Amino acid sequence: MINIGIHGSNGRMGTQIRLCLEDDKQAKVTALFDQGSNYEDFFNKCDVIIDFSTPKGCEDLLLYARSNPKPLVIGTTGLDIKQNELMQSASITMPILYATNMSLGVAILKKLSYLASETLGDFDIEILEMHHNKKKDAPSGTAITLAQNVAKARKLDLEKVRVSGRDGIIGQRSKDEIAVMSLRGGDIVGSHRVGFYNEGEFIELSHTATSRATFAKGAIKCAKWLVSQENGLYDIDDCLGI
Amino acid sequence: MINIGIHGSNGRMGTQIRLCLEDDKQAKVTALFDQGSNYEDFFNKCDVIIDFSTPKGCEDLLLYARSNPKPLVIGTTGLDIKQNELMQSASITMPILYATNMSLGVAILKKLSYLASETLGDFDIEILEMHHNKKKDAPSGTAITLAQNVAKARKLDLEKVRVSGRDGIIGQRSKDEIAVMSLRGGDIVGSHRVGFYNEGEFIELSHTATSRATFAKGAIKCAKWLVSQENGLYDIDDCLGI
Amino acid sequence: MINIGIHGSNGRMGTQIRLCLEDDKQAKVTALFDQGSNYEDFFNKCDVIIDFSTPKGCEDLLLYARSNPKPLVIGTTGLDIKQNELMQSASITMPILYATNMSLGVAILKKLSYLASETLGDFDIEILEMHHNKKKDAPSGTAITLAQNVAKARKLDLEKVRVSGRDGIIGQRSKDEIAVMSLRGGDIVGSHRVGFYNEGEFIELSHTATSRATFAKGAIKCAKWLVSQENGLYDIDDCLGI
Amino acid sequence: MINIGIHGSNGRMGTQIRLCLEDDKQAKVTALFDQGSNYEDFFNKCDVIIDFSTPKGCEDLLLYARSNPKPLVIGTTGLDIKQNELMQSASITMPILYATNMSLGVAILKKLSYLASETLGDFDIEILEMHHNKKKDAPSGTAITLAQNVAKARKLDLEKVRVSGRDGIIGQRSKDEIAVMSLRGGDIVGSHRVGFYNEGEFIELSHTATSRATFAKGAIKCAKWLVSQENGLYDIDDCLGI
Repeated sequence: MINIGIHGSNGRMGTQIRLCLEDDKQAKVTALFDQGSNYEDFFNKCDVIIDFSTPKGCEDLLLYARSNPKPLVIGTTGLDIKQNELMQSASITMPILYATNMSLGVAILKKLSYLASETLGDFDIEILEMHHNKKKDAPSGTAITLAQNVAKARKLDLEKVRVSGRDGIIGQRSKDEIAVMSLRGGDIVGSHRVGFYNEGEFIELSHTATSRATFAKGAIKCAKWLVSQENGLYDIDDCLGI
Repeated sequence: MINIGIHGSNGRMGTQIRLCLEDDKQAKVTALFDQGSNYEDFFNKCDVIIDFSTPKGCEDLLLYARSNPKPLVIGTTGLDIKQNELMQSASITMPILYATNMSLGVAILKKLSYLASETLGDFDIEILEMHHNKKKDAPSGTAITLAQNVAKARKLDLEKVRVSGRDGIIGQRSKDEIAVMSLRGGDIVGSHRVGFYNEGEFIELSHTATSRATFAKGAIKCAKWLVSQENGLYDIDDCLGI
Repeated sequence: MINIGIHGSNGRMGTQIRLCLEDDKQAKVTALFDQGSNYEDFFNKCDVIIDFSTPKGCEDLLLYARSNPKPLVIGTTGLDIKQNELMQSASITMPILYATNMSLGVAILKKLSYLASETLGDFDIEILEMHHNKKKDAPSGTAITLAQNVAKARKLDLEKVRVSGRDGIIGQRSKDEIAVMSLRGGDIVGSHRVGFYNEGEFIELSHTATSRATFAKGAIKCAKWLVSQENGLYDIDDCLGI
Repeated sequence: MINIGIHGSNGRMGTQIRLCLEDDKQAKVTALFDQGSNYEDFFNKCDVIIDFSTPKGCEDLLLYARSNPKPLVIGTTGLDIKQNELMQSASITMPILYATNMSLGVAILKKLSYLASETLGDFDIEILEMHHNKKKDAPSGTAITLAQNVAKARKLDLEKVRVSGRDGIIGQRSKDEIAVMSLRGGDIVGSHRVGFYNEGEFIELSHTATSRATFAKGAIKCAKWLVSQENGLYDIDDCLGI
């Protein structure tokens, strides 16, 4: 049985992870850390830590871990350059897995899209994402990551080829442009589709999240895998072996 | 057997209509009109005329028909106000059916979307269209028509609520906005989707054209119906009885 | 403020309805009935009753209501002929709304599919549904209802034209057949698609439930509407005015 | 400029290939072979041969080529064991590419599905294909190939796990089953979707052919590539480098 500690245990993701581990047969929650908790105690009670806190909280965790190594799965977003460097240096003495989207499905979509983009070099690429009507930014971070990834497979700079809307007499589609279009509505958790279109045929690769538990489950899978890895900095692709 | 005359017989649509009528058991092509043809002859040889020409060509047709009434199916786009008025006055003495999209499927999609928009008043509406990479304008005329139609069902002015792209920190979706998003790629003939999204459920109504023959077939169906109608101005909904 | 009583308050649907009413501004839960409760008390505390119980529970409710009329929204499935008759006779002295699928979206999909089936008489119809991997029956009751409905629009008997699988050298598709195909996988709450296919074009009408709350919300909307209706038996279409 | 010979030049595929090569800048048709043609003449006039004939025609081609080596792209289906062996032995002295589906998109879909099946081992797999209403067999050969491929990635025997319909009280979905469902309608050229479904998320990979020219174009791409390969037997994956 793997003992998991949750850093940021009262947040939305922390709560989801606790729920998902209730029926797990290989891992259980043995330590919770939130404001006011004690690091020594927290570290002693677990084999691996999952962190969904704040950039500052993540920094504190890394500083303590530096002298008390422990496998760390980090899902906190918005880290600044200094915090990123701290994570990298800490990974010399412990295994750390860092990912801003913990869905295993999105990781595989990213991989498959890269392959398709490379192989089907003369197909037009169009990306579509849809999220609930409360989301404040567009396109989604995941859509941008997917777009950067397919652009990279063709040695294109996304900044130069990305399109986020079309209106008026805009002329024929240019060969290299990549549209990343955002729909918003209802309570859609999140769906992403990467399409490749050519004369006579097209391919569409899509991912749909049906519950937020997906992201919690991804983090748990990463934790189970990370606990037996050597020191170093990993991302979710390493866990999947893709 | 219904005798059909094609006005604009050498154009892309005229050619399609001739092809589609080759195996028809209820109607056949008996008269063709293109540059240099003679109106008297043309009118004498047919029971109903299908027009896919130019605004000026359509005007000439209407002027001649005014004193020589004949059922007219008009699919020419881009008529100006004067030409529209001419059509309306001509329809006093003959049956005229006018439609800028002759696909029967699009007509029914328009009808169904209106009903859904009216009944599901608190659902968010998002429209998506996709066409081939040669198309020069966006969104498609049909997408705009569909959007105007669902806006009208909610007493909204499309000009005020239409969105054609999303990029950056744009804030939560406003209740009334209607996105009309355009994808371009490959050789897609044309697809349109009207989506209605709410907490807990969503409905999507879509139409896909798989060949340009669709539009020719729609015009033929209209011609067969129009030949036995009374004088007046009709649109494709009247032909479908919806 | 409308006072709602929940009959079958501890069941899955009863619990969902209580959750959905927590933030409602027009209605609130004022009475709960489950095993061992008292009907006189229960009826006195509410203006309208929502029933998601068992066939026997529903029967008891109807028997008491017969001498103590109260608007009833009934979502219990599996009623036998006698219980159906009891409901019908009870509706002479109170308004009763009965529906086996309380999703407003499915009601509108049913309506739109009927219209499309009637108007697009020569289009091939194929229905696809998908549910989670725990579902034990196929096709879903809702898919069957949708299929019966589009068959009825064409004066076809579903029993004679329904297809539930295809394998081998089966020959060309017959004109009247209606496939109702079932996919199963993951935790999909439920999606249904009614497709109409012809030479050159096709239309697809689809509904997707993203949470079970949908059905609770539908029942609540029905209750709010029913409370001011005259005696009689209604279904969800009456509530929507479609 | 690559000189292409077409074996089976009057068939549907031969005709398509000729059409597609009309505007090609790297290759042109220089030899046609059909009933009554002469092999010596045919072989002398081209650098590479594309064969879409009959099993017997393909056999004759291979017999002649054995003593007169020439790169061969073979798309003829229905070869028997003896003919397959003949192809294999012939490939010792010339490069031969053999594929029963020449669409490049389907080749990449096959590759991506295999990867997804392997990596997402606990996702339920469901395959859906749709073709026009004239198609006589189900599921399509391509759907079966895709299914065999994802089954192989999980060390499953497709014969034991394939499902082609669902009807009645069938119980919960078993973990290993793979449904391959067939829809038929209208004039759909062909679409295939491989879906992977799990708690909380799903991935769908789909391919749609929008014209039969796709298959001709795939064969031409293979011919251009094959002309500079060493002797041996290749399939379309080798041409794509995937």
